[in-house]
Amino acid sequence: MKFDPTSLKFDNNGLIPAIAQDHATGEVLMMAWMNAESIARSLATGQVTYWSRSRQAFWAKGETSGHVQRLVEFRVDCDRDCLLLKVDQTGPACHTNRRSCFFTVVEGGVEGITSDPM
Amino acid sequence: MKFDPTSLKFDNNGLIPAIAQDHATGEVLMMAWMNAESIARSLATGQVTYWSRSRQAFWAKGETSGHVQRLVEFRVDCDRDCLLLKVDQTGPACHTNRRSCFFTVVEGGVEGITSDPM
Repeated sequence: MKFDPTSLKFDNNGLIPAIAQDHATGEVLMMAWMNAESIARSLATGQVTYWSRSRQAFWAKGETSGHVQRLVEFRVDCDRDCLLLKVDQTGPACHTNRRSCFFTVVEGGVEGITSDPM
Repeated sequence: MKFDPTSLKFDNNGLIPAIAQDHATGEVLMMAWMNAESIARSLATGQVTYWSRSRQAFWAKGETSGHVQRLVEFRVDCDRDCLLLKVDQTGPACHTNRRSCFFTVVEGGVEGITSDPM
């Protein structure tokens, strides 16, 4: 079946959550949001482009930092309301300069930091 | 620092997205939503409980199907607006009886199915 980005279930703001996972290690790097046009751009260029909710603008990942995400595999979930992007991440995915945004762990009711900036 | 679920950034509906990942294989299994109380219940019991947006009710994963998720690790992202749950999943995570909800791949503009029901 031909893939049509508009067939996905977007929220009231026209957005869908996208999980970025390191294609080689399986590490979950980040979660951000896409609209139909950012999906089309990502598929067309092979470079991941999100929609920035804070800036209300397209966010070509790594455009200024150089920390680009090359799209290796694009997956859709059963409800068509979430995306999984397997990516080849250059450098850190997180704005704190860590490889993954998920560096805070909760254990025994206490928060801990699991990784340092690169 | 003591972890306080109310310190997270919830959306206008009081919800936060939670990614469930197989703790052993790294496979991303599903994405669902939690509120502060479902987070507290998950951490207290060690069994993952989401909030069902369609039913507007707590959703103790596997309560009826037996396909429970034991919480192995609980992570928070840098913006505190997304969760990563490393879980020990019994059987399929997906309601289609597949291990993961992300069984649809888009390649060359065409959708394909990557796994069969268990």
